[in-house]
Order: sequence, then structure tokens, then C-alpha cells
Amino acid sequence: MIYLDNGATSFPKPCCVTESVLRTVRYSGGSPGRGGHSNSIKAGETVYRTRELLGEMFSCEADGVVFTDNCTTALNTAIKGVCKKGDRVLTSSLEHNSVLRPLEKLKQQGIITYETVKINPLCDSETVRNFKEMTDNNTKVIVCTFASNVFGTVLPIEEIGRFCREKDIIFIVDGAQAAGAFEIDMKKMNIDILCIPGHKGLFGPSGTGAMLLSGRVMPEELTQGGTGSYSMDKNQPASAPDRYESGTLNLPGIAGLNSGISFIRRFGGEKAVHQKETALIKLLEEDLSVIKGVKLYPYMNSAVRSPILSFNIGDYHSEEVGAYLDKNGIAVRAGYHCAGLAHSNYGTAYSGCVRVTPGIFNSIKDIKNLVFYCNKIALGKNL
Amino acid sequence: MIYLDNGATSFPKPCCVTESVLRTVRYSGGSPGRGGHSNSIKAGETVYRTRELLGEMFSCEADGVVFTDNCTTALNTAIKGVCKKGDRVLTSSLEHNSVLRPLEKLKQQGIITYETVKINPLCDSETVRNFKEMTDNNTKVIVCTFASNVFGTVLPIEEIGRFCREKDIIFIVDGAQAAGAFEIDMKKMNIDILCIPGHKGLFGPSGTGAMLLSGRVMPEELTQGGTGSYSMDKNQPASAPDRYESGTLNLPGIAGLNSGISFIRRFGGEKAVHQKETALIKLLEEDLSVIKGVKLYPYMNSAVRSPILSFNIGDYHSEEVGAYLDKNGIAVRAGYHCAGLAHSNYGTAYSGCVRVTPGIFNSIKDIKNLVFYCNKIALGKNL
Repeated sequence: MIYLDNGATSFPKPCCVTESVLRTVRYSGGSPGRGGHSNSIKAGETVYRTRELLGEMFSCEADGVVFTDNCTTALNTAIKGVCKKGDRVLTSSLEHNSVLRPLEKLKQQGIITYETVKINPLCDSETVRNFKEMTDNNTKVIVCTFASNVFGTVLPIEEIGRFCREKDIIFIVDGAQAAGAFEIDMKKMNIDILCIPGHKGLFGPSGTGAMLLSGRVMPEELTQGGTGSYSMDKNQPASAPDRYESGTLNLPGIAGLNSGISFIRRFGGEKAVHQKETALIKLLEEDLSVIKGVKLYPYMNSAVRSPILSFNIGDYHSEEVGAYLDKNGIAVRAGYHCAGLAHSNYGTAYSGCVRVTPGIFNSIKDIKNLVFYCNKIALGKNL
Repeated sequence: MIYLDNGATSFPKPCCVTESVLRTVRYSGGSPGRGGHSNSIKAGETVYRTRELLGEMFSCEADGVVFTDNCTTALNTAIKGVCKKGDRVLTSSLEHNSVLRPLEKLKQQGIITYETVKINPLCDSETVRNFKEMTDNNTKVIVCTFASNVFGTVLPIEEIGRFCREKDIIFIVDGAQAAGAFEIDMKKMNIDILCIPGHKGLFGPSGTGAMLLSGRVMPEELTQGGTGSYSMDKNQPASAPDRYESGTLNLPGIAGLNSGISFIRRFGGEKAVHQKETALIKLLEEDLSVIKGVKLYPYMNSAVRSPILSFNIGDYHSEEVGAYLDKNGIAVRAGYHCAGLAHSNYGTAYSGCVRVTPGIFNSIKDIKNLVFYCNKIALGKNL
């Protein structure tokens, strides 16, 4: 199978990741922070070392790294944890449901109001201006994605971050599609809370994610429970990361994530990953753009792009195209991508779109194969 | 190492569990419910089959099985999802912080009031009477543990459940220490929501858990986000399990859990597990009870007991004993067990206690070894 759905979850995982997960399940009896026996202490060390790696990667303190089961839980914790009664929140027209649905819920509960700021994928300064114009005195939080999961559009995060700091607005960023493929510096970009998955660009297994805290804002925790600390107190501990990590952590997952991050370092860092994947996407774009009937959605600034390309062919529904490609051994994602607003705003609400997200293990041949079958469809192949 | 801390997480895992996790990380590219390619569909099938297994084990519908990252998240979702403004909640004097801290939080937010019902570990009818006497017209929810994580005390769940149904009270049960070692029948016991970990008695890897819904009560969901369903709708889907499972699931974990449950079946079911572990605990209790200076806390009805034994030796703090045992290759849990209330109520608030939780892979020799070192301590061994 040719796997081109790394935007859903990266595959294959580097061997070191698989081995770390295996080793942990097989040899590690012990729950980090629970009990003082050697295994439990060793488990705690693995977890802490992974906090350090993530902190180094995204410029925050190790203790600001909070492990979650996925990026969505991190976003829910961040959004619900900082929004206060009466707050107005701004978000973008390209958001995933992991941002939109929590906001909608808070709105329906009468806690916040929120507005959607129009992103111009081809003009960052207009996007920033739109954010500024929509901000009023009651705007307390801006939450937006680093890169669209549908079109790959990269938002001008640094500029939005600078504006947030000037106005003392809390800035939450959804790094679902960006972590591992972009250098994200929370300090430089004035990001207060960065939410990331562990199983996409960071090559960890699914079941991993993190909420990274700059320390400037401490959200309320979403859950309470045993933290292995202050056991006799019926109140949740006040400090990160314990406050946000109730119950047993996903130790094999975190060990795998640790190896995934180390793998990226050995590969040459985020820049090298980005370069490799972008080269494949550019090739795909070139090849598809000359096929009659293929409609591309390269909604991005050509200077900064995320290695994602979405398209449709003729009048086919994207899911028909996806099914045909699958039958021929190519895995892409078709349909809607948990991002209704993005589809509505950028012309793909009717049939969704086929999304291609290559990874560093893909080759030029994989792309050429995909193009071959797309060509067949465009030439009238009966699906 | 002799591992006797299965109450924290079971270890070792059966080989089939390790292999399932490995196979999933190595070969399964795909996120269940995301996209229609074969890998993603196969992932969805694994998840669904695991729902069925859990449903069969605990007597609920497969669609009522909601996967979480651990038992604590399940308890938070259940408790916060059913409690309404002004409700009065009853819980027991033996609860873990995963029940107490969410309740305390809701109380501090002015949403609920809650009371702690005294458990008599040696008299079930008194315990049930205490619950009945503490119930008033405003009591809407009872949440309690199936078995204490500190002392192994088993609560009269069936009787409490019957009473809840009579009074139309929502009944939530924390199955953290019981799932896998007791036959828990949600229908027969009138349990509305059962919360369980996947990585303890069910032999899954850590990072797994579930909230099981009888269908009689549908809690509010704790998080919203992408569910792979109704993507164009900015509202969370209304039905289980999608409603409660936002973001990417822990696929390797769930595959491992699937194998863990199948392993229990092959082993002879919960009864066989219980029998094996209880035999080891009884042996330990017999041997320790004759050592002068050992104080046992067998706070349980001898007829129904959970395979846990806690104790202290002389004036030593439990953590000193735990560290000495660890040095001699025996892993137990010492200190406080995320259950301050239980320690306060049953006489171990000062020095915590040493908790022994054997698993099915332990032998009589393991227990004899533990007793040998306990004897040394009691005889005046300098720690």
C-alpha cells in the first residue's frame, strides 16, 4: 500500500518508535509517579525526559508539558480552561471541529461569544488586519490553527501572536498539522498554549498528545483525580504538569513519542522533514495541475506551505475518488475532514475533497503512481 | 524482580497483548472512523470488536462502550456529565481521588453538594443501611467504588444498585480495582455507568480505559471535537459512542486491550483470575498474621474479598518498608494510594500502608519471598 494519509496519523512509524513501545509494554511494570519501586521511578524518568524533549522542541519549560491522549483533549482543556463567563473569542475560518465544537458548546452554555475571522490564504497581511479589526475590548482569547488540515494554509502565527501580546489577549494555537513539520517557537511567536498530537508529525503512536504551557496563563484543569502527588488532599494539586494529568498516563505511547522526537532530530529536524514533504507535494501539484478536470485547492502562500494538497476530479464526489484509489492500493483521505467551516468557506462543501498528505517515507514513485490513477479518472475511467 | 503492584498496573502483560500492540504500531496505518481507505476501515473493525468484547463482559451494548485514556477520565465524564445544578450526591468513605476530587470541584463550583457514607467493611447490611439513611429527596446520584484500592474491601454493589433503581437515583460505579477480577453485570447490578481502566485487571497497556453506559442515562460529554461523523455540523453528535470520543483514539492500546480480554476468557474468566489471586492473598495474610509487629488491614468480608492486602510493620513508615523491599527485588506500593479519605477513615493516615496486589503470573514462591523480607524487618533489620 502507498500511504498518503499522514495528516490523519503518520505511517509507517520509525522502527525506533515501534521498538520503544514494544519494550515498554514488555518490560516496564510500573506507573510513573505511583509508588517508589524502581520500575515506577524508571517510568517517571522516561516521562520526564519526553517532557524535556518537547520543551526543547517548542521552547517551553519541561514542567509546562502536559500529556494528553490526543490534540483534541489538549484543545478542550486549553479553551475551556481559559475562557471566562462573558469573554469574546476570535477564531479563524479554517478551523477543525476540535476548536469549533468546544467554542460552540461554550457559546450554547452562555459562557462566551465567538466570531470567525476570515483568512485570506494568499495574503497574510489581510488576515492579520482582519483579526485586528474584529478585536474589541471584550476579546480575551484568540484560538486558531497553525496550518489548515484541509488545505495546508499556514496562518501568520507570529504576527497574530505579537498582536495578542500587545492587547494582552490569550493566544492558543492548534498545532495538529504543524508539529514536527514546522519550527514552532512558543516564546518567539508569543503562543500561550500550544496543543499538539503525538501521533502525526512527531511519529509517536496514536493515543498521544500534549498541551504546552508558556507559563503566562494557567488554564483550569478539565479533570481531577489521582495525580500521585498530595494524595491526602481532596483538592487537585495547583501546579503543572500534575494538575492536568489525572490518572495513569499512556506510558508506552509516551516512550514511543520520545523516540519519534529523537528520530526527527536525527533526520535533521523539522526543516528537513518539511523540505522532503514539500518537495513531494510540489511535484504532485505540478503533475496534477496539467490534468484536465482536476481542480486543485492550493490555498496557500507559496512561500510558506504545509505539505498538504487537496483536490477534486471532474464531477466525482471526493469519496468516489478515494475509494477508487484505495482499490488500487493508495491510501488518501477523502470526504470532509472534520472541518465543515473550512469546506463551506473555501468551496468544497458539496463533495468534500481528496486530501494527500505525504510523509518522509514516501518517494517520488508514490506520487507518480497517484498521478497515474488520477489521470485515469480524469480520462473518463468509470468509477 | 517480583512484581506485586498489579493494583497500579498489571505486569507482565500476556504475550498476546504485547504482540497486538506491536502489530498495530508496525502495520496499521489508519485512524478508525477517519477516511474510507482499507487501513482506516480495518482499524475501525478492531475498535468495534473491542466494544463488543467489553459489552459482553459487563452486560451492556457495544455502542454504550466509550473508550477513554484511563478510568479517571471515564469517572470525570460520568460524574460531571450527570450532575446537575443543585443535586446532592452520595459517595463512600473508601473512595479514590478520582471520585473525590471531581466531586470536590463540583462542590466548590457551587453545582452540587455531596456527602460521604461510612462503609462498614465487615457488615454489608450496615453499609447499605447507611446509604439508605443518608438519602433524601434531593439525592440524585450515588457514585462509589466496587472495591477499595487500599484495603480491597468490596462494597455491596448489587444491594446499593437495587436501592438506586427503586429511588430513581443514577448509579455510577468505579471499577478500577474490580474489572477483570470480578463478574460485574451492569444489568443485574443496576449500574448506570461503569468506569474501568484497561491496563489493570483487563491486561491492556496503560493509556486505556472505558466508560460503559447502560443506556438509561446519557451524560453530557466532557470534550467536543472531530468524531469522524457529521463533519459538517459544528455541534457534537448526540449518540454514543461518537459523542464521547473526540479526536484520534489510542488504536494500539485498544488492540492490546482486545487481546487482554480474550486472554482472560482463555484463562477461564474473571472467576479463575479471582481464585488464583485470592489464594495468593490468603497465603500472604496467613503468613504475615503470625509475624509479631505486622499490622494487617484486611478490612473485608471474608466471603467476598478483592485480592489486595495492606499492612505496616512496627513503627516504620510504609515507604521505608517499600524501599527496603524494592532494594531486595520486590515491587509493592507504599505510601498513600491517592485515597486520603480511606486512609483517614481506616487508621492509616499517619504512615500510609504497604499494599500488595498479586497477579495471575505470581507464584507461591513470590509470596514466600515477600514474607521472608517482612520477617527480617519485624525482627529488627535496620532499614
